[in-house]
Amino acid sequence: MRILISNDDGYLAPGINALADALAPIAEIVVVAPDSNRSGASNSLSLDRPLSVQRASNGFYFVNGTPSDCVHVALTALLDERPDLVVSGINNGPNMGDDTLYSGTVAAATEGYLFGIPAIAFSQGAYGWEHIDAAARHARDIVQRYYQTLPRPYLLNVNIPNRPYDQLNTVVATRLGRRHHSEPVIKARDPRGKEIYWIGPPGACKDAGDGTDFHACAQGQTSITPLQIDLTHTTQLNALARALA
Amino acid sequence: MRILISNDDGYLAPGINALADALAPIAEIVVVAPDSNRSGASNSLSLDRPLSVQRASNGFYFVNGTPSDCVHVALTALLDERPDLVVSGINNGPNMGDDTLYSGTVAAATEGYLFGIPAIAFSQGAYGWEHIDAAARHARDIVQRYYQTLPRPYLLNVNIPNRPYDQLNTVVATRLGRRHHSEPVIKARDPRGKEIYWIGPPGACKDAGDGTDFHACAQGQTSITPLQIDLTHTTQLNALARALA
Amino acid sequence: MRILISNDDGYLAPGINALADALAPIAEIVVVAPDSNRSGASNSLSLDRPLSVQRASNGFYFVNGTPSDCVHVALTALLDERPDLVVSGINNGPNMGDDTLYSGTVAAATEGYLFGIPAIAFSQGAYGWEHIDAAARHARDIVQRYYQTLPRPYLLNVNIPNRPYDQLNTVVATRLGRRHHSEPVIKARDPRGKEIYWIGPPGACKDAGDGTDFHACAQGQTSITPLQIDLTHTTQLNALARALA
Amino acid sequence: MRILISNDDGYLAPGINALADALAPIAEIVVVAPDSNRSGASNSLSLDRPLSVQRASNGFYFVNGTPSDCVHVALTALLDERPDLVVSGINNGPNMGDDTLYSGTVAAATEGYLFGIPAIAFSQGAYGWEHIDAAARHARDIVQRYYQTLPRPYLLNVNIPNRPYDQLNTVVATRLGRRHHSEPVIKARDPRGKEIYWIGPPGACKDAGDGTDFHACAQGQTSITPLQIDLTHTTQLNALARALA
Repeated sequence: MRILISNDDGYLAPGINALADALAPIAEIVVVAPDSNRSGASNSLSLDRPLSVQRASNGFYFVNGTPSDCVHVALTALLDERPDLVVSGINNGPNMGDDTLYSGTVAAATEGYLFGIPAIAFSQGAYGWEHIDAAARHARDIVQRYYQTLPRPYLLNVNIPNRPYDQLNTVVATRLGRRHHSEPVIKARDPRGKEIYWIGPPGACKDAGDGTDFHACAQGQTSITPLQIDLTHTTQLNALARALA
Repeated sequence: MRILISNDDGYLAPGINALADALAPIAEIVVVAPDSNRSGASNSLSLDRPLSVQRASNGFYFVNGTPSDCVHVALTALLDERPDLVVSGINNGPNMGDDTLYSGTVAAATEGYLFGIPAIAFSQGAYGWEHIDAAARHARDIVQRYYQTLPRPYLLNVNIPNRPYDQLNTVVATRLGRRHHSEPVIKARDPRGKEIYWIGPPGACKDAGDGTDFHACAQGQTSITPLQIDLTHTTQLNALARALA
Repeated sequence: MRILISNDDGYLAPGINALADALAPIAEIVVVAPDSNRSGASNSLSLDRPLSVQRASNGFYFVNGTPSDCVHVALTALLDERPDLVVSGINNGPNMGDDTLYSGTVAAATEGYLFGIPAIAFSQGAYGWEHIDAAARHARDIVQRYYQTLPRPYLLNVNIPNRPYDQLNTVVATRLGRRHHSEPVIKARDPRGKEIYWIGPPGACKDAGDGTDFHACAQGQTSITPLQIDLTHTTQLNALARALA
Repeated sequence: MRILISNDDGYLAPGINALADALAPIAEIVVVAPDSNRSGASNSLSLDRPLSVQRASNGFYFVNGTPSDCVHVALTALLDERPDLVVSGINNGPNMGDDTLYSGTVAAATEGYLFGIPAIAFSQGAYGWEHIDAAARHARDIVQRYYQTLPRPYLLNVNIPNRPYDQLNTVVATRLGRRHHSEPVIKARDPRGKEIYWIGPPGACKDAGDGTDFHACAQGQTSITPLQIDLTHTTQLNALARALA
């Protein structure tokens, strides 16, 4: 089994190192990840400049680009053989609800899925890397248990609570919850007196009810949401057609 | 009526200038757009550095950030009053099918939609700005005709053929088509001999059948796709739940 | 007479616009400047990515690069004929003493000088663009009066007090003063709690004595310092040779 | 003895690793270097965004900034005690003649010198890292032999031939040579058809005569040039004063 691993926190992040360590015993792994933190990169691709690829002493490839760039370059130029699975993460902090739109972690997995390869994005439910090794071992369990059996292709968004390994025992299928819109930007001044704006934190949960990823994580459960990438609002389509007629 | 206008080609692009000119007679407009071309930016947000905002001599605001950054800063810091509509574009070239995942034009509109505001992304069906003024006038027609009547909130993805205004007479409701995966990266060497990789062109159409945006544009029709942003693969959810049980 | 104009504040800055307006009546001007503020760019060149050039509605060219990139591209690709003079600025704030090492304004002029073309860097003695039109008119006077007569090639660093035009009546030849080393970086935290560091202000004057650019500006005089670019410490050379022998 | 080490090729480059390994036995070393290759950065400082600092598993600090940023942050925020020496490099390729104006390697040393600390910039005479360990051992010899005895403060620019250690036996004091101006930019098109420009190679030697760094390196000798940072063209100063009078 061949697994391509990427992330959005950069190739040096504890999350991708823990994930690579956990998967190395069960698969031939290749890591291709951004050279630095690209959180919030979404599916962005670098179209106006070329990318370069370097290899670190531990064998990881790193790219001066986005998560999507990394998987794109890996699949179309670096890898001799098509991987059986693309995994992304483990992200520092949750990617739930509307966050998935902005997430570079989800985007890296999405890029694999667009090439027809099963793909899984892994995130920890809370920031700070606590219990990252437990999360990585748990991620390996998920790969081993479900890699073969799920209908293909699939794109899974997995959020793992920050807990010791022996407390990671419930895995539930969820839908994405919803957040309220983001908090306002934070105004400040730089040391030269110029007004600057920092993007603020995400909004509070709006739909965190039973069945959502937010709800599962609040219960200490691992949440797995199956994703698709067709943004068509199917249920509005007929109404729109009538309005245009 | 107050309209916030953004794009991903940058505040100097012909498309946003044509759109602003076309909408100014029917609304109070504010333009907040990236300082330079950010095509392919997707929904990316700048989380690791602050943004700054400047104002050009024509009154447009420009931001050293992504399309999502621009709408985010506009809605939470720059505008005194909430706009009634967010429009984005007119993009240089189509945003159809899977392109919508990568598109900064769609992302700018999406950011407005996430704040609960009706939003429309406009793109031209072909590159090169030919008939951009016709497209802008047609965009205004769409705003005037449908702004009030569609069920809210809505997020529309509009692709307009590059044609003279009097040939822009058919508007159809579509679903997003599908592309084959992207072409491989293009390998090259920079003048110092270093290997570099350019992201290549999008893949050819896979689903361009009747009812898709691709099909509409091929027929010379304006395509309007209603979008939603919940990536949950609802039809896979039960199967996944059974597999996890 | 053909003059190439650049700066480091970006092609939209009031300083370069005032300078272009002032010089247009006496020369054929071409403006090639950075797309955004590149203060502190020094002589940096963009070696790891290609540059692109756009043209604004007022005819100015702008480049996604540094001041040195701009002059380099102008002289080796954009201009059909070699200019007779390269001018840079007018910078927002002073470039005196050790500042000249960091200054993109001085760097743009230096790039012209390296190509064998007379070059002048203009800065205002204080921030805020007050009396920028007076400074531009005064800059034109300097070009007209001294362009022909100075021994060539020359590289001049000019700092002009922020004063009304009729009070800009003394021009003195100066040497660069010296500053104490810079103030410490300013530590802060970004909204996500990450420790960040802002480069702080330059140090106070150490040598601002008679004959320096600092002294001239303090007296309300325009300072002109002739620059050279050979960093060899000639007076240490013999001592070093003896030490190595 | 405490030594601060930086470079412009990034903290992962073979040159800085070889230099750190060579100096560790004779001094307490701290490495603070850019997160990625910043060749051509000159003395540029990042004024419009904050810097962040991370620490690699080998103890090296890396900064999302320029060489000058790195030394600046190290000296004013990271280090508890002032270092006795700042060294920079070993650069991949030469920094001779006019190259010193553009060099980030020289700039990192210059930043130390501006803070009153002796500083040495090391470069290899040819690209490709051949004999980098020999160069590093030779660099240590230079530090050990001359650190104490040279008049202070000093800023030395050292270029070491790519040779085995036992052939690195001649060290000469040199002045900077001169190059002809740079080769033209290289025009190309990106895959989307947009015209782009790559900065081309430096010009050929103009003054590579006896006594220059170019000449020393051509003879297989290690070149040490003492640098100063006052750009005043002292010999033109009187002529300018007369012209202005």
